[in-house]
Amino acid sequence: MSFKREVIQGQEVVSTEITDDIYDLPHEECGLIGLWNQKQAAFDAYYGLHALQHRGQEGAGIATLHDGKMLAHRDFGLVNQIFNRRQSLEELKGKAAIGHVRYATAGLNDINNIQPFVFHFHDGPVAMAHNGNLVNAHSLKVELEQKGSIFHTTSDSEVIMHLIRRSQKESFIEKLKESLKRVVGGFTYLFLTEKELIGVCDPNGFRPLIVGRMPNGGYVMASESCALDQIGASYLFDVEPGQIVSINNEGIQKEYYTEARQQAICSMEFIYFARPDSNIHGINVHTARKNSGKKLAQEQPVEADIVIGVPNSSLSAASGYAEEAGIPYEMGLIKNQYIARTFIQPTQELRERGVRMKLSAVRKVVEGKRIVMVDDSIVRGTTSKRIVGLLKAAGAKEVHVRIASPALKHPCFYGIDISNTRELIAANHTLKEIEKIIEADSLAYLSEEGLISAIDLHSDAPYKGLCMAYFNGDYPTALHDFEREYRAELERIVVD
Amino acid sequence: MSFKREVIQGQEVVSTEITDDIYDLPHEECGLIGLWNQKQAAFDAYYGLHALQHRGQEGAGIATLHDGKMLAHRDFGLVNQIFNRRQSLEELKGKAAIGHVRYATAGLNDINNIQPFVFHFHDGPVAMAHNGNLVNAHSLKVELEQKGSIFHTTSDSEVIMHLIRRSQKESFIEKLKESLKRVVGGFTYLFLTEKELIGVCDPNGFRPLIVGRMPNGGYVMASESCALDQIGASYLFDVEPGQIVSINNEGIQKEYYTEARQQAICSMEFIYFARPDSNIHGINVHTARKNSGKKLAQEQPVEADIVIGVPNSSLSAASGYAEEAGIPYEMGLIKNQYIARTFIQPTQELRERGVRMKLSAVRKVVEGKRIVMVDDSIVRGTTSKRIVGLLKAAGAKEVHVRIASPALKHPCFYGIDISNTRELIAANHTLKEIEKIIEADSLAYLSEEGLISAIDLHSDAPYKGLCMAYFNGDYPTALHDFEREYRAELERIVVD
Amino acid sequence: MSFKREVIQGQEVVSTEITDDIYDLPHEECGLIGLWNQKQAAFDAYYGLHALQHRGQEGAGIATLHDGKMLAHRDFGLVNQIFNRRQSLEELKGKAAIGHVRYATAGLNDINNIQPFVFHFHDGPVAMAHNGNLVNAHSLKVELEQKGSIFHTTSDSEVIMHLIRRSQKESFIEKLKESLKRVVGGFTYLFLTEKELIGVCDPNGFRPLIVGRMPNGGYVMASESCALDQIGASYLFDVEPGQIVSINNEGIQKEYYTEARQQAICSMEFIYFARPDSNIHGINVHTARKNSGKKLAQEQPVEADIVIGVPNSSLSAASGYAEEAGIPYEMGLIKNQYIARTFIQPTQELRERGVRMKLSAVRKVVEGKRIVMVDDSIVRGTTSKRIVGLLKAAGAKEVHVRIASPALKHPCFYGIDISNTRELIAANHTLKEIEKIIEADSLAYLSEEGLISAIDLHSDAPYKGLCMAYFNGDYPTALHDFEREYRAELERIVVD
Amino acid sequence: MSFKREVIQGQEVVSTEITDDIYDLPHEECGLIGLWNQKQAAFDAYYGLHALQHRGQEGAGIATLHDGKMLAHRDFGLVNQIFNRRQSLEELKGKAAIGHVRYATAGLNDINNIQPFVFHFHDGPVAMAHNGNLVNAHSLKVELEQKGSIFHTTSDSEVIMHLIRRSQKESFIEKLKESLKRVVGGFTYLFLTEKELIGVCDPNGFRPLIVGRMPNGGYVMASESCALDQIGASYLFDVEPGQIVSINNEGIQKEYYTEARQQAICSMEFIYFARPDSNIHGINVHTARKNSGKKLAQEQPVEADIVIGVPNSSLSAASGYAEEAGIPYEMGLIKNQYIARTFIQPTQELRERGVRMKLSAVRKVVEGKRIVMVDDSIVRGTTSKRIVGLLKAAGAKEVHVRIASPALKHPCFYGIDISNTRELIAANHTLKEIEKIIEADSLAYLSEEGLISAIDLHSDAPYKGLCMAYFNGDYPTALHDFEREYRAELERIVVD
Repeated sequence: MSFKREVIQGQEVVSTEITDDIYDLPHEECGLIGLWNQKQAAFDAYYGLHALQHRGQEGAGIATLHDGKMLAHRDFGLVNQIFNRRQSLEELKGKAAIGHVRYATAGLNDINNIQPFVFHFHDGPVAMAHNGNLVNAHSLKVELEQKGSIFHTTSDSEVIMHLIRRSQKESFIEKLKESLKRVVGGFTYLFLTEKELIGVCDPNGFRPLIVGRMPNGGYVMASESCALDQIGASYLFDVEPGQIVSINNEGIQKEYYTEARQQAICSMEFIYFARPDSNIHGINVHTARKNSGKKLAQEQPVEADIVIGVPNSSLSAASGYAEEAGIPYEMGLIKNQYIARTFIQPTQELRERGVRMKLSAVRKVVEGKRIVMVDDSIVRGTTSKRIVGLLKAAGAKEVHVRIASPALKHPCFYGIDISNTRELIAANHTLKEIEKIIEADSLAYLSEEGLISAIDLHSDAPYKGLCMAYFNGDYPTALHDFEREYRAELERIVVD
Repeated sequence: MSFKREVIQGQEVVSTEITDDIYDLPHEECGLIGLWNQKQAAFDAYYGLHALQHRGQEGAGIATLHDGKMLAHRDFGLVNQIFNRRQSLEELKGKAAIGHVRYATAGLNDINNIQPFVFHFHDGPVAMAHNGNLVNAHSLKVELEQKGSIFHTTSDSEVIMHLIRRSQKESFIEKLKESLKRVVGGFTYLFLTEKELIGVCDPNGFRPLIVGRMPNGGYVMASESCALDQIGASYLFDVEPGQIVSINNEGIQKEYYTEARQQAICSMEFIYFARPDSNIHGINVHTARKNSGKKLAQEQPVEADIVIGVPNSSLSAASGYAEEAGIPYEMGLIKNQYIARTFIQPTQELRERGVRMKLSAVRKVVEGKRIVMVDDSIVRGTTSKRIVGLLKAAGAKEVHVRIASPALKHPCFYGIDISNTRELIAANHTLKEIEKIIEADSLAYLSEEGLISAIDLHSDAPYKGLCMAYFNGDYPTALHDFEREYRAELERIVVD
Repeated sequence: MSFKREVIQGQEVVSTEITDDIYDLPHEECGLIGLWNQKQAAFDAYYGLHALQHRGQEGAGIATLHDGKMLAHRDFGLVNQIFNRRQSLEELKGKAAIGHVRYATAGLNDINNIQPFVFHFHDGPVAMAHNGNLVNAHSLKVELEQKGSIFHTTSDSEVIMHLIRRSQKESFIEKLKESLKRVVGGFTYLFLTEKELIGVCDPNGFRPLIVGRMPNGGYVMASESCALDQIGASYLFDVEPGQIVSINNEGIQKEYYTEARQQAICSMEFIYFARPDSNIHGINVHTARKNSGKKLAQEQPVEADIVIGVPNSSLSAASGYAEEAGIPYEMGLIKNQYIARTFIQPTQELRERGVRMKLSAVRKVVEGKRIVMVDDSIVRGTTSKRIVGLLKAAGAKEVHVRIASPALKHPCFYGIDISNTRELIAANHTLKEIEKIIEADSLAYLSEEGLISAIDLHSDAPYKGLCMAYFNGDYPTALHDFEREYRAELERIVVD
Repeated sequence: MSFKREVIQGQEVVSTEITDDIYDLPHEECGLIGLWNQKQAAFDAYYGLHALQHRGQEGAGIATLHDGKMLAHRDFGLVNQIFNRRQSLEELKGKAAIGHVRYATAGLNDINNIQPFVFHFHDGPVAMAHNGNLVNAHSLKVELEQKGSIFHTTSDSEVIMHLIRRSQKESFIEKLKESLKRVVGGFTYLFLTEKELIGVCDPNGFRPLIVGRMPNGGYVMASESCALDQIGASYLFDVEPGQIVSINNEGIQKEYYTEARQQAICSMEFIYFARPDSNIHGINVHTARKNSGKKLAQEQPVEADIVIGVPNSSLSAASGYAEEAGIPYEMGLIKNQYIARTFIQPTQELRERGVRMKLSAVRKVVEGKRIVMVDDSIVRGTTSKRIVGLLKAAGAKEVHVRIASPALKHPCFYGIDISNTRELIAANHTLKEIEKIIEADSLAYLSEEGLISAIDLHSDAPYKGLCMAYFNGDYPTALHDFEREYRAELERIVVD
C-alpha cells in the first residue's frame, strides 16, 4: 500500500492512491454521540465528544439537522482544535445532532474519511457515524461496485449506506434492518434523518452504546457513559446486541433486527479503551480495573517494596494490586501530560519516541526499591522494555512486571488496531523469552478466568459476555474476508 | 439555495447543505487537457493548463497514471498557485495525465467539485474531467438515486460516471458510448484509464476539443489550440460533434457514438472565451474577431476621431473596425493587469467594483475626441455604462458604442454562466432604452449574419456551425429539466 | 489596553496597538534550555523543551549557531506542533542552541514576542531567552527610548539587550554584567553568542536554572532538572542568585555580578509550577509536595473516609495527607487528559469552561463518603467551588477542602500571572467566607511555617530560601514601576 | 549570502540568517500612498495601492491613525490578496493612513521587511513607508549599531528612523530634516504621526511623489498620479527634489531641507515602471513612450511589413514607431494575463520560464512577414532572444528589434533591481554580438538624446531632468558604500 501526499487548501494531506489493497487497513476505534430534541444540540455534541476524545484523536465532526437540511463540520485534529470558536458551533443550528471522534491507522488520512458522513439525497438528507469494523466489507464493496455503486471514501463505513439506498423496503428503518443482515463484524452506528435518531449495535455487542435522557426531555446516545455525565444526562440503558434503538418525537422504540445474538463485548474496553469513570452494562471501568489488579495480586504475588502503575490507564489496577498485596502504592513514574498515549501514535517510530518523551521515573521514589510494575497490557513489548529500563536507570533494585490482562496473541478484526500477529510479542515469543526481552526480573499475566471474574458481567456462555479473541483466538463471528490470512498467521503463533 | 461555511483544515470553505435545489446552478465554463505517452506528463499538463487559465480561475487539478495507480492534486486557485513547487509536479509521476481548470458560479465552492475526479474502483482507477453542462442532469440524478446510486458532488459531471458504472457493456468504451446516449447538453469529457486516454464531444459540438501530437511521439488533447502551442505540440485535428477519440499505445482511434449530430459550436468561444491565438476548426480567433470588427464598421458606421477597444478581449475587433472605417486606432483605456476579467468575478458587487478598479481612461488620448468604443458584448450593461462614464469624465466629446456581436437575450444551458434572462439588459430593454441607460451617444450591435460571415466556418444548415441560442433562442437540443422555466422567461423577453 | 487583530500570513494574530500601557502586562512564566558543544543541538533542545512544556504552552522556539550565523525557528503552539517534521530540526544546524517555551497573559500574542530573540549585529549574532519579569522595565524602556533606542517587541525581555549594546565595556560578559546591575526583578536569562553560552540568575534566585553535562562532553542549562533527565544529561549544579555561568570551549566559568544576593526562590515552583520529578536546589518536587501534604494532615486533621487529590498537581500532596492521616487514598476525580491545566487558560470564560470539561467525579468511589479533597492552591475559588459541587453531585457526604499552601493574598511581580489582587479570593474574603463560597464542609490552609519546613531548603534568613510574597506581601526587592499601584491595592486586602 | 526557510504561523518564510552581507541587496522599487483627513482612509489607501500594484507585488500594507494609536495590517502578496475581506479594511479605522506596495529582490522575504513600518514609542506612534535605496545605508547602520542601536529588519528603510530618534532637535520635522542630511540615495518617504502626514523626496528627485486633493477636502500623496485618478482625487503638484511636504489640519506646508538639489528623475519611470496613464512632472507616460517610438523610427528606420510591440509595456512605443514609419501596427504577440511581468520575477530560472509561459505569437498575423519588434529595454537578453525565436517559429520572415531606450550598461544604486553589470548583456557585449545572440535580423537602440527629447521634461543641465546613469554611468550622487565595487565593475564594461 502506498500513499499520496497532496496539499488541499494549503494543508498537506496524506491520501491513498491505490484501489486494490485499500480494504486491508480498516481497523478503527472511535467514539459516537447523538442528540435528539436538545436545543443547540451541537454544543452538547461538542462537550460529549470532548469526553470521548480518548476514543479517537485523528479527527472529529458534528452534523446537525436544521430546517430539513443537514449542516456539518469535520476536520483532522482534536475536538477543541476543530471547534475552536463559539461561532463554529453556533452555525451548526438545530435540535438534533450526531458527532464522531475518529482514530485511524497509519495513512488513510483522507478528509473524506472523517465522520459523520453526510448524504444530500433528493429525498432528504441523512448523516451517519460508525464505530467498529466489518469483516465482510471488502466483499460487499466489490459486489456493490459490480452493481454500479461508486464509493467515495476508503472507509468501511460507507458500505451500509449503499446497502440501505439499494434496499427496496419502504421506510428507512426497514431498509436499515435489511442492510444490517448483510454486514458482519463489530459495530455501532448512529443515523440521523429528518424523522429520527437511530442507534444500532452489532449482534455480538462488541462495541458499547449507551442511551440517556437530557434534563429537559431530550435524548442522547453515546459510546460511553462518561459523555452522558459530561453533559448532565441521566443513564437509561445500554443498547443490547442486535438491537436498533430509534428515537423520534414519539419517544424511544427498541427492536431486534436479528435472532442470532449474544453478548461478547470487547474486553479491551474494560482493560484499556474506556474511561475509568464510565460504566458499561452496569460495570464501572475503574472498579473492573481495580478488581483485575486484586485478582492479579492473588494469582501472581511477588515480594516487593512498592507497587507502581504505568500512568494513566494502569493506575487503577496498580492500586488494586497494592491493596490486595498489602504493599505501598507509590508514584514512581510521571507522565508528560502533553503527549497522547502510546497506543494512539500512528507510526512505529513515533511510538517508540513517544514513550521516551512521555514517561519519567522519579528517582527519589524508586531508588533501591524492589518494584511491582503493573501495566494493563503488552503489545509489542517495546514500551515495557523501555519502562523497565527507565526504572532500573533510576536505581530500582528489582522490577517485577505484572500485566492486568492475559497475553495478546491474536489479531482483532472488530475494530481494534491489532491487525496482525507479527507485531504482538506474545504471539511470537514464550513468556520466558518476553521476560528476558523486556529485562524484567519477573513477568506474569492475569488469567482469562481472572479477567472474567474481575469484570464480572454475569453474562451467559459461550462468551460470558466478553470477546477475548485477541487472547484465545475464539472469534464470535465468521471471519469472511480475513479468514484465509488469519489461518496462515495462526500456524505461526507461539504456544507457550 | 443556501450555503454552509465550514473550515476544512484551517481554511474556510463554502459548501452546500441542501439537496433539493442543488441542481439549479450547474453552469460552468472550463478548460481540459490530457496527455498520453509523454514523459513527466504532469509538467505538460501544468503548462497547458496555464495556457487555458482564461477558461477558469476558481480551481484546477491534475491527475496522472503511474504504475496502475491514479495520483492527483487539485485545489482552489490559479494553476500557478496550486502547483507552486517543482516537487508538487514531480510527485505526480507517470506518462499519462489529465488536467482541468474550473470556473464555477457563485457558491458551490466545495473542494469536491474541483476536477479531475478520481475514482478508485476495485477493477482499476479512472480519472475524468468535464467541460460544459447537461440539460437533463437533474432527471438523471434522481433516476440514479432511486436505483441506489450515491452522489458525492454537487456537480453535473459525476452523472456520466454513474451511468458508465451501471452499464452492462463489456469495455470501458462501450459502456461510455451507451452512457453518452443518455446525457443531453453541451460537453466535452476527458477520461483516463489504465489503458487509454479518451476525449468526447457532444453531438452538437458546443465545446471545442483539439488533438495534437507531442514532439516525441506522445499525444495531447486540449480545449484550445493555444495549449498545444504552449507545450510545443503540433495540431492534428478538432474532435467533431458526437465523436469519441481514444488514444492508447496502438495510436488514435476515432468513432461516432451517435448519428444525430451537427456542428453548432458556441459562438461565444469566438466572441469572448477563447484566446486570440487559438484556432478552432481552423479559424483563428483573433482573425474572427478582427473580421467581426470590420463587418461591424460596414453595418454600423459612425463619424468619429478615434476607435478604441475595451481591453483585452475587444482589441482585435476594435482594430478591425478602425482599419475598415479608416479611423485611427488608439489606446484610450488602460487595464490594470492585476484584476481578472469582469465576466469571471463571482458576485455582482465584486463585478461592479472590479470594473472601477480595472480600467482607466487616458485623458491625453481621449480628451475632446469623438470616440467609437468597440466591445465584444453587453451582459448587464453596468460595465458599458461605467466605461462610457469613464471616457466622458476624461473629456471625450462623444462615445459611440459598437458591439461586435448581436444582443444577448436568452439564457445558455450548455455551459455559459448566463443562467437566466433577468440579468441580461437586452432581454429586458429595447436598443434605445439601453443606449440611454449606458449614456452612449449611439449604440449598435453586429447582426447575426454579420457574425456568421465574420467567423466564416463554412458549415451547413441549420446552424451554419454556430450555436447562437443566447441571441435568438434557437437551441440545438431539447431543454429537458430547463424547458418549463425557460418557457416562463420567454414570455418576458423584450422584442425590439 | 486594547488590542488589534490582524491576519499575518493567513493567520489571525492579536497584537497591541497602544504604547502607553503596554508595560502593564509583562507577567510571564517560561522555560529555557541551552546547549553547548552538542552535535545536532536542536534535537536536544527540542526534547528538552518538551520536558519543559508545562512551563509555557503559548509558543516556543529554538535558535542554533552554525558557521557564525544564528538560525532560528519559533511559532505559536506547543513544541511538537511547531517542530512537527524531522526536517524542521535538521535545518537548525549547529552544536550550540538555546530554546524557549513561553506562557503569556491574554492579548500580547505577537509573534515578535516569541523567543528566543535573535539579533543579527554587524559584529556578530546573539540569541537570547528570558524567563521572569522585571519591575523596572517600563522606566528603563522610557529612558532608553529617550536616548534613541527603538523597541520592536512589547516584551520586557528586549530591555537587557539594549542595555548591553549601549554598554561601553569590552567583552560581552562585561557589558552583560554592567547591564544586569540596571534591571530589577525575577529572571533567568540564556545568551548564545559565537563564543559562549551564558546563563544568568537574578540576585534573589527567583527562577530556577540548572546546569548539566551531556554524555559526550557537551553542556546543558535548563529551567528544570527534568529537561536534563529527558535528554540523558547528568546534574552538575543549580545556578545561584546573582550568578553568571558562562560555558565555552574552555569549560565552565562561574562568577557573581553583584554582592547583594540572597536566596528567595519562588515557592510556587515547588507548590505548582515545576514537574514532580524535577529537583530544585537538591529538593525533589514530588517529595516536597508529599511532605506538604503530611504537614497539612498534622496541622489540619479531619475525620473522613477517603482522601482524594485534584489531578494532577495535587496528587503528591494528597497521598502525603492520606499516609500521615491513615485514611485511604482513592482516585475519586478523573482528569480528561486532553485539556491543559486551568492556570494556563487565557481567559476567565475559558478557564471556567476548562474545569467543567477537565474533571469528572467517579461516582462509585465517592458516593456516600466523607472526603478530604486536597488541592495545591486556591486562586479565584471558582475551580474549588466547581470540584466540591462535582463531588457532592456524585454523592459525596462531606467534602473537606485542604490546601497544601498558605492563602494567596498578594500579586506577584516576578513572573507569575497573578497581576492584581482583585482576582484573588483570599485577598477579598475571610476564610469562613471562602468556605461558604466554595460550599465546602470545612476549609483549611497549610501555614507558612508548614510550607517552609515541608520544602526544607535549609537556607538562611530573612527568606529561608523562599519567596512567599504572594502569601505575606514581603517582597524581596523594591517594586519600582509597580510600587504605587501595589500600595493602593494593599489597602483593600482583607486581613483574616 | 544565504537564507533560512522557516515556518512562521504555518506559512513558509524565507529569511536571512547572516549579518555581514545583508547590506548587499537593498534594491527596491515600491509604491507609496498617504491620506490625511479622509473618512475611512484605509479604503482609499487600498484602492490607491491597487492602482500602484505594478510598482511591487511582493507584499503590501496599510497603517492608519485612530484615537492616537497606530493600527496596521501588512503581509506578503498582492493588495487584493492581503485585504480580501471588507472587514480587514474596516478594522483599520481612522482618517489618516499610509500604504505601501513592495518589490524586493530575491530572498529577503522576511515579513518584518514589509512596510509600512509602525513604531509604538512612549511619546507617540509613527508609521513610515519608503521607496528607493540609500547608497550609505551600510555605513550608517554600522555607525548606529556601534552607538547601541538595534536593527530589526534587513531593510535600508529602518535607518532613517534611528537617525530621527537620536536627533536632539525639538519637533519631528526638525529631527527629520537633520536626519535627511545624513542619508544619500534615491528615495521618497511618507511619515504618519499623530500631528501630520509628511512626504519627502531626495535631493535629485529620483523617485516620483505626487500630491492631490480629495473631493471632500482631504489630501493624498502617492508615487504616481494613477493612484489619484483611481480614488477620484485632483492633482495639485509633484513633490520637488529636496522638498518636504507636510500636511496637517492647517493645510499644506512645503520647504526644502537642502540647497544642493537638482532634478534627475529615474528615466526608467517613463520607459518601464510607471503606468501609461500616469503623469510625472506634467508628462504623460503613454505619450512619452509613444514619442520615444516615433524618435526611434526616425533614428532607426527599417523596411518591414508590420510593427508589433512586446505586451504590455512596449505597445505605446510600438504604435508610435508604426505611426511615424507608416507601417501597419499589428497584434502579433499575445500575453497570458495570468503572469506578472518578467522584470518582477524573483529568480533567474523563474524569469526564464515566465517568459515562455507569458507570451504567444499569433501565427496568422506574423507568418511570412518582415517584422519590427519594438521593446522598451533589454536587460539580460534572454527575453529578447526568446521572443525573436517565438516569432520566427511562428513563421516570421525577418525580425528587426528596436529598443525604445539606450543600452543598459551600468548598475543602478537608487532603487532599481539592476545591482551589478554581470547580468546586463549590453555591459558585456557589443551591439553586433547582442544582435547575434538574440538572433535578430537587426538590432538598434534609441539614443540618449532621442530619449531626452521624447520625454521632454524641459529641465536644466546637467541632467536635463533625468537620471540616465544605467545608460552612461553618470551618477548624480557619490556612491559611498558601493563606490569601490562599482569601480571594479567599470573596468569590465564593454565599450561599443
